[in-house]
Amino acid sequence: MQILQQQLPTGHGAVLTAYLQQVGGEFAPLARRPAVLVLPGGGYQMCSDREADPVALAYLQAGFQAFVLRYATGAQAAWPHPLEDYEAAAALIRSHADDWALYPDKLVVIGFSAGGHLAACAAAMAGQRPNAAILGYPVIDKGTVEAYLPGAPDAAKAVDEHTCPCFVFAGRDDTTVPVANTLAWLEALTRYDISYECHIYSQAGHGFSTGESFLGTQGLCSRAPHWVSDSTAWLRDVFGDFSGGALTAPRCQARVNGNRESAYNVDCTLGYLLQSPAAAVIQPLLQPLLARLHLNALPASLSGLLFRQLAGMIALPPEQLAAIDTALHAVPKQQTGGDTPC
Amino acid sequence: MQILQQQLPTGHGAVLTAYLQQVGGEFAPLARRPAVLVLPGGGYQMCSDREADPVALAYLQAGFQAFVLRYATGAQAAWPHPLEDYEAAAALIRSHADDWALYPDKLVVIGFSAGGHLAACAAAMAGQRPNAAILGYPVIDKGTVEAYLPGAPDAAKAVDEHTCPCFVFAGRDDTTVPVANTLAWLEALTRYDISYECHIYSQAGHGFSTGESFLGTQGLCSRAPHWVSDSTAWLRDVFGDFSGGALTAPRCQARVNGNRESAYNVDCTLGYLLQSPAAAVIQPLLQPLLARLHLNALPASLSGLLFRQLAGMIALPPEQLAAIDTALHAVPKQQTGGDTPC
Amino acid sequence: MQILQQQLPTGHGAVLTAYLQQVGGEFAPLARRPAVLVLPGGGYQMCSDREADPVALAYLQAGFQAFVLRYATGAQAAWPHPLEDYEAAAALIRSHADDWALYPDKLVVIGFSAGGHLAACAAAMAGQRPNAAILGYPVIDKGTVEAYLPGAPDAAKAVDEHTCPCFVFAGRDDTTVPVANTLAWLEALTRYDISYECHIYSQAGHGFSTGESFLGTQGLCSRAPHWVSDSTAWLRDVFGDFSGGALTAPRCQARVNGNRESAYNVDCTLGYLLQSPAAAVIQPLLQPLLARLHLNALPASLSGLLFRQLAGMIALPPEQLAAIDTALHAVPKQQTGGDTPC
Amino acid sequence: MQILQQQLPTGHGAVLTAYLQQVGGEFAPLARRPAVLVLPGGGYQMCSDREADPVALAYLQAGFQAFVLRYATGAQAAWPHPLEDYEAAAALIRSHADDWALYPDKLVVIGFSAGGHLAACAAAMAGQRPNAAILGYPVIDKGTVEAYLPGAPDAAKAVDEHTCPCFVFAGRDDTTVPVANTLAWLEALTRYDISYECHIYSQAGHGFSTGESFLGTQGLCSRAPHWVSDSTAWLRDVFGDFSGGALTAPRCQARVNGNRESAYNVDCTLGYLLQSPAAAVIQPLLQPLLARLHLNALPASLSGLLFRQLAGMIALPPEQLAAIDTALHAVPKQQTGGDTPC
Repeated sequence: MQILQQQLPTGHGAVLTAYLQQVGGEFAPLARRPAVLVLPGGGYQMCSDREADPVALAYLQAGFQAFVLRYATGAQAAWPHPLEDYEAAAALIRSHADDWALYPDKLVVIGFSAGGHLAACAAAMAGQRPNAAILGYPVIDKGTVEAYLPGAPDAAKAVDEHTCPCFVFAGRDDTTVPVANTLAWLEALTRYDISYECHIYSQAGHGFSTGESFLGTQGLCSRAPHWVSDSTAWLRDVFGDFSGGALTAPRCQARVNGNRESAYNVDCTLGYLLQSPAAAVIQPLLQPLLARLHLNALPASLSGLLFRQLAGMIALPPEQLAAIDTALHAVPKQQTGGDTPC
Repeated sequence: MQILQQQLPTGHGAVLTAYLQQVGGEFAPLARRPAVLVLPGGGYQMCSDREADPVALAYLQAGFQAFVLRYATGAQAAWPHPLEDYEAAAALIRSHADDWALYPDKLVVIGFSAGGHLAACAAAMAGQRPNAAILGYPVIDKGTVEAYLPGAPDAAKAVDEHTCPCFVFAGRDDTTVPVANTLAWLEALTRYDISYECHIYSQAGHGFSTGESFLGTQGLCSRAPHWVSDSTAWLRDVFGDFSGGALTAPRCQARVNGNRESAYNVDCTLGYLLQSPAAAVIQPLLQPLLARLHLNALPASLSGLLFRQLAGMIALPPEQLAAIDTALHAVPKQQTGGDTPC
Repeated sequence: MQILQQQLPTGHGAVLTAYLQQVGGEFAPLARRPAVLVLPGGGYQMCSDREADPVALAYLQAGFQAFVLRYATGAQAAWPHPLEDYEAAAALIRSHADDWALYPDKLVVIGFSAGGHLAACAAAMAGQRPNAAILGYPVIDKGTVEAYLPGAPDAAKAVDEHTCPCFVFAGRDDTTVPVANTLAWLEALTRYDISYECHIYSQAGHGFSTGESFLGTQGLCSRAPHWVSDSTAWLRDVFGDFSGGALTAPRCQARVNGNRESAYNVDCTLGYLLQSPAAAVIQPLLQPLLARLHLNALPASLSGLLFRQLAGMIALPPEQLAAIDTALHAVPKQQTGGDTPC
Repeated sequence: MQILQQQLPTGHGAVLTAYLQQVGGEFAPLARRPAVLVLPGGGYQMCSDREADPVALAYLQAGFQAFVLRYATGAQAAWPHPLEDYEAAAALIRSHADDWALYPDKLVVIGFSAGGHLAACAAAMAGQRPNAAILGYPVIDKGTVEAYLPGAPDAAKAVDEHTCPCFVFAGRDDTTVPVANTLAWLEALTRYDISYECHIYSQAGHGFSTGESFLGTQGLCSRAPHWVSDSTAWLRDVFGDFSGGALTAPRCQARVNGNRESAYNVDCTLGYLLQSPAAAVIQPLLQPLLARLHLNALPASLSGLLFRQLAGMIALPPEQLAAIDTALHAVPKQQTGGDTPC
């Protein structure tokens, strides 16, 4: 492993530290690794060492290349300086994909507290969007962020359909950043059909980082340190797992349904399809089913079902499913405008 | 272990099955056990066996007495019949505390899907309130419950300050009961300062029960089955753990702060105390602290801090803390009316 | 679930309790379950309740049918009475395979302390051999068993090539049954190429059963209770896992190599094959390999390698591997007599 | 974190790499950390990168200072060169205790395969004994080590009463280093009353390092990667856990009884005391107990009990226990010569 350090050219004193692991040699056929960019917390006043190296080490152990960004804080922190630092760091990392032996499209950002706000903004509004985001007891909403960095945005309000899958954790009993921030983020992701995983621990307070005892985290409930291994397991689902030098196909998609794709498709929900011009494509299949169940219309309890799931239930042959998918793609997509197409 | 079965007198055909474990004898000094009441799901149309015995077994193994309630469903289900069945079951269980060797004040209710709706209503509005509640992929909001049992209440709207601590889990990708139901419940608990723990798994779908493979739950993400052991660990925090035949003191309180107690106290948040007549009690201590930090007023980022935590930070002697607590109790409590006193 | 109880006809007062779970119905396509037979400890003086139901519950939760055998103890215990009770119980269980919905060839026996001695004897010398065995802090060797039941056999000495795969756990600091008993068992299994898994915990003492706190097991190291979930995971490897109502193919074979099969085969070790008449079959393939490595003979460090593993390393085409397997089978097997053919 | 590299002066080309984490500052009150010295495997022909950094990272994450020793291999490996390199590395690490912020008496050595042989020799025969040792699929016995480094000693034969507590893990199905090596080590530790923990996984093969998927370890059973977190939990028992900048008292002692202390004491076993001149001290207490149980002599099943445990069972007052301990210390210790005093 080697450690590199680099000042970023954004002019706010930001420094990127890289922890780069070997590929090839005895690690062959491994040729690249996914990468993690750590954004420590510190209320936009400082970048806490407790949420820097200890976090990078967890992902290094899981096989990642790891980076710690000490972004603009204190007098330098005026928004959007921290986000500019993130953009520069992410661009730099991706531009070094070959020599630093990493996958440029497997970059996960992880942020804590104020760093969680920055990671959330990266996920929701950056030019250099991360491919996955992990937020630890994040600052999200306007009310809370104003206490730390006046003028910084409400991250939940910025969520859009290009926001990456997220893993979020927090302590219910956090008296520094209320857990309502986490809930606000989940609601925004839910509204945009984004995949996520969330763990809220009954007793964890604020700032527990990896929960290791050397960090002085006595008093945590037994579950709180689990986020570390849970997050690496989740990343294996989202990015794929190491196998024979490459990554396997992801098990977890970025969105929970196909409603926001550019065309209608078999991963859309029944409710969404039936309220669209694509209804005509699936009605011929749906009507006999409903008739057999003595129903006039799709019951509300089934409106969230994906067409693909329905196809599985009725053992629709794959080629018929493919044909329907093709037919759905051919229907011109109606603009829904708002943020809740289903 | 013995199994008892009893028809409930509510007139809707409800049946309570009891799984009763031994105390005393070789289990001495164990004299009582906490109890769990399982409410299976099934859309208020039936009570699923998949969410009955397999769940009871998990808590039996952890040392609990276990009960399965097959409540009113189908033609019998008109609200509030299911809740009446719960009330009768809980009353019966508590009335048998001595002969069934259980703690009547350590009764946890666990419900799944529609049974999760019933468990949530038990927690929020029953006469026989449970002492803890575990909700699995629960139906909560009006929109969803109407699809299953028209006329049943929105459980989140019923939450009050006497609602017990909750453990909630769900799949993000649930296409039967949208995860927004779980979020609605968390928001209500948050508003009322109720303790909780929550695990939302990226890929778990609906109806995975304990996640054991014999239930046909292929496709779950690796974290989904963890709720079982996480929930028993959480119950040890909330109820106390077995030790020498008794239960230790709980580590986790029912509410995250003292704002909703009948008197002001040192577990109230600073923000809450400062906006109340009790401000006069803590100002003499707070003012010099702020002055030392060159602050005129408490920064917003500290308003969620409990007075007890502040006391710990400044190493206030315990007797001084106790004196302040006494002084706070003496201030007449102002009625705040609404649901968000902080 | 239903509970049945049955006196065994062996005349020593033995009683079998059956805990039978549902199949079919909502559990369809599940039609059968593997079965576990619990043999509690108690120094052949009694059968401890602490190692009866709490253990059965762990495997019930994992989907098994469970049985507790209260075998001959005290005045009735004269060897081989307890083993006769085991034989009768196992025969009864297997004869009820259809009506009790279990796999007669997936019967695991689990015993603790003196019950671990009985389970070990069942695995090594019974007529009704179990298909897997789990031994908790077992009495094994002559020196120890004599203190509890004079005349009972040294279980390790009885191990033969038909002994089933074993999962063994114990406390290093056991002052009742020395951990040397566990080691003696492992050595015997090793000598006969039997598969096993073993966990010896630094601090667990004796008699900790499942390690649940209601059993009064304070003072255990944090790893000790893991044997429960580790053993069910191991059983999924040995028996196969539930999938679509059937069990998948086992991942873990009963023996670690093919040396003790009735014919030579590609799962034999290189060292074993080279010292046998089968050497002629593999020499034509091996010689050029060694020549390429500038070696005259197989290095000792490679003698434990299975031929199949070597084939994988040199990417031998499957059909060539199959041809060699056929050729090996055709070589008449030499009797080795002793117990260490490799 | 910083990385230092240093050639050792032993003349065999050995190199020590140090990974040093911060103390003080935001990590205050943490002032020192325990240390781990990693000895990679490679058959004494090379030091495998796969068992170097990935292992160091696991202990760095747990709060340790970490070191990787690339000891003499290949042409340089003639015994005792590798052990000389270990001695030099351990001496260097301990001499830098202050500037590298580590506890010189909390140095754990971890070795794999041939590195496990070296770690075992360090534990059993070095001048610079480690304070704990972790051995992964180690080469131990003469038969096996001769295949890799002719002339190197049988590590099990070297075990003495000053050998440190050990954590050992291996795969049952290891075809490179037979699991009998691990058993030989456990037997030696058992004979000398040394504390240990051991995990033998049914399917893990050889060389799985931390078991992380990026190492190409497909095919491991699900338990195999658990040794990593189990070993850090065990180290917290043996060294104490971080708390307020210091380490708590260890929960796990280096030996399982007091039989090998320089004086008789209440942690000796009853069997050992009764066969020694110290019997006179405990007989007055023991005799009435046995009489009450209608026994003439201590039953064999109780001979392994510590006197301290007996005292607990009969609720002997602490001051009486202390008095007996003093009386035991006063009896001149008899030399037993052999290696099995109990």
